[in-house]
Amino acid sequence: MNPSISQLDASGRLRHLLTLEGLLRERILALLDRAEDLRAQSRGGTRRLDLLAGCTIVNLFFEPSTRTRTSFDLAAQRLGAQVINFDIARSSTVKGETLLDTVHTLEAMHADAFVVRHKESGTPEYIARHLRSGAAVLNAGDGSHAHPTQGLLDVLTLRQHRADFENLRVVICGDIRHSRVARSDVHALGALGMRDIRLCAPPELAPAPGDFPQCGIFHDFDAAIAGADVAIMLRLQKERMQAAAIPSEAEYFQRYGLSAQRLRHAAPDCLVMHPGPINRGVEIASDVADGPQSLILEQVANGVFVRMAALAELLAARN
Amino acid sequence: MNPSISQLDASGRLRHLLTLEGLLRERILALLDRAEDLRAQSRGGTRRLDLLAGCTIVNLFFEPSTRTRTSFDLAAQRLGAQVINFDIARSSTVKGETLLDTVHTLEAMHADAFVVRHKESGTPEYIARHLRSGAAVLNAGDGSHAHPTQGLLDVLTLRQHRADFENLRVVICGDIRHSRVARSDVHALGALGMRDIRLCAPPELAPAPGDFPQCGIFHDFDAAIAGADVAIMLRLQKERMQAAAIPSEAEYFQRYGLSAQRLRHAAPDCLVMHPGPINRGVEIASDVADGPQSLILEQVANGVFVRMAALAELLAARN
Amino acid sequence: MNPSISQLDASGRLRHLLTLEGLLRERILALLDRAEDLRAQSRGGTRRLDLLAGCTIVNLFFEPSTRTRTSFDLAAQRLGAQVINFDIARSSTVKGETLLDTVHTLEAMHADAFVVRHKESGTPEYIARHLRSGAAVLNAGDGSHAHPTQGLLDVLTLRQHRADFENLRVVICGDIRHSRVARSDVHALGALGMRDIRLCAPPELAPAPGDFPQCGIFHDFDAAIAGADVAIMLRLQKERMQAAAIPSEAEYFQRYGLSAQRLRHAAPDCLVMHPGPINRGVEIASDVADGPQSLILEQVANGVFVRMAALAELLAARN
Repeated sequence: MNPSISQLDASGRLRHLLTLEGLLRERILALLDRAEDLRAQSRGGTRRLDLLAGCTIVNLFFEPSTRTRTSFDLAAQRLGAQVINFDIARSSTVKGETLLDTVHTLEAMHADAFVVRHKESGTPEYIARHLRSGAAVLNAGDGSHAHPTQGLLDVLTLRQHRADFENLRVVICGDIRHSRVARSDVHALGALGMRDIRLCAPPELAPAPGDFPQCGIFHDFDAAIAGADVAIMLRLQKERMQAAAIPSEAEYFQRYGLSAQRLRHAAPDCLVMHPGPINRGVEIASDVADGPQSLILEQVANGVFVRMAALAELLAARN
Repeated sequence: MNPSISQLDASGRLRHLLTLEGLLRERILALLDRAEDLRAQSRGGTRRLDLLAGCTIVNLFFEPSTRTRTSFDLAAQRLGAQVINFDIARSSTVKGETLLDTVHTLEAMHADAFVVRHKESGTPEYIARHLRSGAAVLNAGDGSHAHPTQGLLDVLTLRQHRADFENLRVVICGDIRHSRVARSDVHALGALGMRDIRLCAPPELAPAPGDFPQCGIFHDFDAAIAGADVAIMLRLQKERMQAAAIPSEAEYFQRYGLSAQRLRHAAPDCLVMHPGPINRGVEIASDVADGPQSLILEQVANGVFVRMAALAELLAARN
Repeated sequence: MNPSISQLDASGRLRHLLTLEGLLRERILALLDRAEDLRAQSRGGTRRLDLLAGCTIVNLFFEPSTRTRTSFDLAAQRLGAQVINFDIARSSTVKGETLLDTVHTLEAMHADAFVVRHKESGTPEYIARHLRSGAAVLNAGDGSHAHPTQGLLDVLTLRQHRADFENLRVVICGDIRHSRVARSDVHALGALGMRDIRLCAPPELAPAPGDFPQCGIFHDFDAAIAGADVAIMLRLQKERMQAAAIPSEAEYFQRYGLSAQRLRHAAPDCLVMHPGPINRGVEIASDVADGPQSLILEQVANGVFVRMAALAELLAARN
């Protein structure tokens, strides 16, 4: 990782959204409130606003992603912005242009924001550090580092159901070590006052020692989920299963999957979340994913409003 | 095929457009009239309307298609809607997400309509049956089942030239067995009162017995086209030619292609149609495709207006 | 090359933009002035205009291109037009449809303009010659023939820095023989009165004899750049290097690359240009590309305004 730049400008305003780490509670709450406000203003996403009319948003996705790219695309369109979806495979990076030359070219065309997803941690920050204009960078997921809008949409969704963050017990289960979602969730939940955060993973996929000092680390999901008010299940990348020496998906599900039976050991009405896309029968049972305690589709819906809020926060003040 | 759902809601309004089969004459005429009206309102497609402002249309194309996807895209844009072109190859289906999870995710982002093309018959209906929101599904072609907007644009084009549907003789020639276009055309033409519909195909590509009870089945194109007022030529999929034991494109053209010479056996001023894209010299001679009796480009033009009409019919009442 | 058609209509108005060859000085100046005007009206590209509301622009790119396609896309969007980005690889040309059938189909859907890039010289003109509607064709680069908007943006950028075109000495260096950029630049610079244009290339990549009668031809870059006021560096296609019998990129840079040291032999404050994307360390040194004399990013910025001007010139009069 490269040396860090600040997400804030000299007057303390948010200039980029690279990570939730270090963001103050007030700032996170303001973003959530703005998301709720934009949901109301846009009548649940059915009314086009013109808050960002004239703005140009560039989606720079170096990894394929259905939901995140579409969510940002809709967020930008519903704020009245112009969107350029930059398909990396087809682009001049084919011709060997460097990443920064691509970015500077798009800045020269007056891009107002870059939404960046990349498999390498630190790419959005790297781009932010080398910008030559006043453009904003929004991290849409970088390696195992951060996925800040996911963290925001998760706490927004949670807040719509539970007000007492201080007393909630949450368990996050899966490949914690490589999960940008887990990292951003822990930052968001911690900033909002949650004290009992349990991270559960196979030993080989557990976080590095000292990585999450404020969290309990578990390898036994049955122990971790006992009494939990919220269970956040992480998507299993198939190639990680081998690294964890787990012989099959059935075996993974047996040990780390959320079944209806296991969910009964959590608190009554324990809320179930997942960033998607889900592997049914691997990290979560179909009847749980589709069941009454699941917030998975609410997370998706809130994703658009959180991204509208982030874009509005970063760009609306400029024009 | 799965058990069927109704395209109509409880109050008899069109909720999805999956097939023309069973649609009443009045409903089809109303869609054609609306298409004409939208053509006038949009001044032939040069003026953007705001009938669907705030609506989100998702193009879910699992098969490549130039004209149909672009036609739906333009139809939606010219009604003021936001369009998400969902490139299946690049999407999270890469990650193994199921079709329905993709659809439910897009519903959660407030998609108002899904325009679906898929090589398997029944996919649009399958999606419609599992929707969780009030979204509409428009079938943009599914396997050999149906292509309802093609059927509508074909009768709209025909109506612009001939009023006397009851007396017209039409021949549809090509791979009838696998053609969703033939099926939707027969439904549309039948609903509008056409009585003499001839289907002509090589024996191996003829419809299954009893499939089109109201039509005459021919294997000899010269006999089928005699006295026809309309000839609808179907695109030949090259792989079907082998199934039909036809050794070459030249041989296919000789037996089932529409040449200028063969067209002389039809009625004077016989109208020539083709859903496109055409194989010149295979199912249709170039001079016929480009000749004065050809309506092929009028079909394309009407396609946009028919799709505007279908989108407006399904969505405009909601907001 | 096919026989030429006129870019002008009967009343002398620009109908297509295929080449700068033969365009009068007054017409080029009018396009540059309109670009400046649109820059002001759109407040540097941050305000959406509605000059082309209701128009449909089709980007027909048969070659991959980041900057040119995105630049045209943004230009059209910022004028309020609808844009169809036609991805050739995914399109029905897969199904064997001919180029002209694709074009006629899009015309039937009421495309107002086609922005065409193709690796074969003459394709935009070929399309223009076979149009059936009043649509305009804008050449976005065809083979080694022409890249008129690049020529326009280059002289626009130059004019923002130097008024005395008649007295400037310009050197264009690289693969002159195959360069559409060099050709369009020479036409634009010549029309604006520049008299001392030097073309420098390895002998194998030099222009055919008589191709640029008004230019000096050089093989020695040190001689060519002596006293130059402007250096336009061309992108080296790697496969051309072998044709030129140059054994390595380092060798090419040594002989034909623009280093800081070589730049010192030019006139003081010699302006440095490049159409991009650049090969750092091949045809241009990084410190020169990023240095104070480089106009490369200004060229990119002007590209959007020049394309807005061309679209407006060709289309705005119609509605």
